Amino acid sequence: MKSPAELKELFENHIRTVFQDDFWKGSLYQPIQYIVELPGKRYRPILLLLTYQAVTGESPERALNAALAVEFFHNFSLVHDDIMDNDPIRRGKPSVHEVYGVNKAILSGDAMFALTFEMLIKDFPEQAVSLIREYTQISVGVCEGQMEDMELPDEAVEDVPISRTLEMLRKKTAVLLGGAMSVGAICGGASKEVVDNFREFGEAVGIGFQLQDDYLDVYGEQKKLGKRAGSDIVENKKTVLLLKAFEKANADQLQRLSALLEEEDDAAKIAGVKAIFAELGIPEATKQLIGTYFDKAQSLSQQLSHLPGYVPIGKFLEAMMQREY
Amino acid sequence: MKSPAELKELFENHIRTVFQDDFWKGSLYQPIQYIVELPGKRYRPILLLLTYQAVTGESPERALNAALAVEFFHNFSLVHDDIMDNDPIRRGKPSVHEVYGVNKAILSGDAMFALTFEMLIKDFPEQAVSLIREYTQISVGVCEGQMEDMELPDEAVEDVPISRTLEMLRKKTAVLLGGAMSVGAICGGASKEVVDNFREFGEAVGIGFQLQDDYLDVYGEQKKLGKRAGSDIVENKKTVLLLKAFEKANADQLQRLSALLEEEDDAAKIAGVKAIFAELGIPEATKQLIGTYFDKAQSLSQQLSHLPGYVPIGKFLEAMMQREY
Repeated sequence: MKSPAELKELFENHIRTVFQDDFWKGSLYQPIQYIVELPGKRYRPILLLLTYQAVTGESPERALNAALAVEFFHNFSLVHDDIMDNDPIRRGKPSVHEVYGVNKAILSGDAMFALTFEMLIKDFPEQAVSLIREYTQISVGVCEGQMEDMELPDEAVEDVPISRTLEMLRKKTAVLLGGAMSVGAICGGASKEVVDNFREFGEAVGIGFQLQDDYLDVYGEQKKLGKRAGSDIVENKKTVLLLKAFEKANADQLQRLSALLEEEDDAAKIAGVKAIFAELGIPEATKQLIGTYFDKAQSLSQQLSHLPGYVPIGKFLEAMMQREY
Repeated sequence: MKSPAELKELFENHIRTVFQDDFWKGSLYQPIQYIVELPGKRYRPILLLLTYQAVTGESPERALNAALAVEFFHNFSLVHDDIMDNDPIRRGKPSVHEVYGVNKAILSGDAMFALTFEMLIKDFPEQAVSLIREYTQISVGVCEGQMEDMELPDEAVEDVPISRTLEMLRKKTAVLLGGAMSVGAICGGASKEVVDNFREFGEAVGIGFQLQDDYLDVYGEQKKLGKRAGSDIVENKKTVLLLKAFEKANADQLQRLSALLEEEDDAAKIAGVKAIFAELGIPEATKQLIGTYFDKAQSLSQQLSHLPGYVPIGKFLEAMMQREY
């Protein structure tokens, strides 16, 4: 069985081979090559290949195009998200709309998405219907997550239940991680039960992962974050931490929290919100919540451990969770 | 066999039934319902249903979701095109980005496109692979056509060969008309030869149709056009008419044409360009070119006339070509 690092190399080689074709020189396709070739962690294709390998017990060369489809989808959604969020930087480089303009970024994104469907099924014609059904659910779910993410800032903090932010995180990120695994399992011909387990497994990891992100934004080491700690607090982002604080706060704390949302001195705002978080035990509660997702992932992992090529998945996810990969 | 008008009614009923589901009330889906419910000619779904009926000799209820997929695709491309072209009006109503904002228009467009893939294959699982392959070609082709359409204005008129504008028209419009027919034929289980014939048939009609559009923009009655005649001339649009004029012009005419491209008085510009068109026989040459596409469609039509339910297609296309439908 190949390790995650070996699969990453296999996948990067596949990308290089695919992009050697002159097809990608056309002006509709250059932006696709640009974004896909930016160095990325390739979590989704690696998860897909690991899952295929787990299910079949075979080296997953046959699933490389399906893995590329999932990576293309991820990149397509980044291209359109960066336009919507007006984000000029992606993976440390100018985002696609900065390089090629908004119109070409919209259109090349559309073409990238269009290409994924045939790419997904071409080496698994016998699974075409299941794959298209699964992939449609995934891609629509990701769009729903992005819509929620765009709409959440317009709502009053006290009106947003934690469940809504969790569902937003699930759709915006976890659905595609779970989807990479469910698609890998379908490619490998797994039973519905195994496919469902992998999907839930990936989603649990994905939600845990995103929650950890929000936790680290407040409590992480600035050096590791690569950005200033506390940016979510400054932006009044409706993270689980903030929503939980609003849920648990007494009248006095509620008043202080509401006042802090309007605070214009960033350092004072971060310090003030963190003080209330500490009073309310928010860091512990958040870590506990993250733990429930990772425990769920762990337990699903055990249920899948009988599969012929299962070995490396757990460790990879553990590494993902610790951000060391 | 159902007539085009009956098929349009059948299709409109299907749309109404589909949109009764609460699913479409979600904020990601409202813009989809908005654009699809704007009154349209429904050429593409009608062509798909006519083709399915032709191939099978059966009433085409089974192909309604595939027809909806093609109509959704068409509407998705309109939503994104209207953003790119900054066009505030669609079918006489505010375009989607005017009503919902650019971000929601991008995202709802993406979701609309995502939904088409499962919609397309769900009632034809046995044709899933052929359908996805065909549909990917179609959708990528339409993106290529839109890219060409965006890039053509930046080029010098004398550098653009007529073949490039024809290829742009083919991809931007004709590919989807041909695609509606090829998809309908595949749904009906037609042979590769019949599928190819339908695709070529639809593309020939589509190119002829677009050329007629460009012809009518200069020579049509203003009342029927619904816009001021000569707008393409005012905008220096690289129509086949203008390119053919550049190709046929002598040195003197070339100089006058080039000067007219810069003319700021619209009426003088239109009159001047039309005078040169007349000198060079451009209206006749364009009509002749349109004729070659419609003749090709006619001849393909005859090759397909043996199919069990073929009857109404020719007349529908004739009506389309005469803009009376």
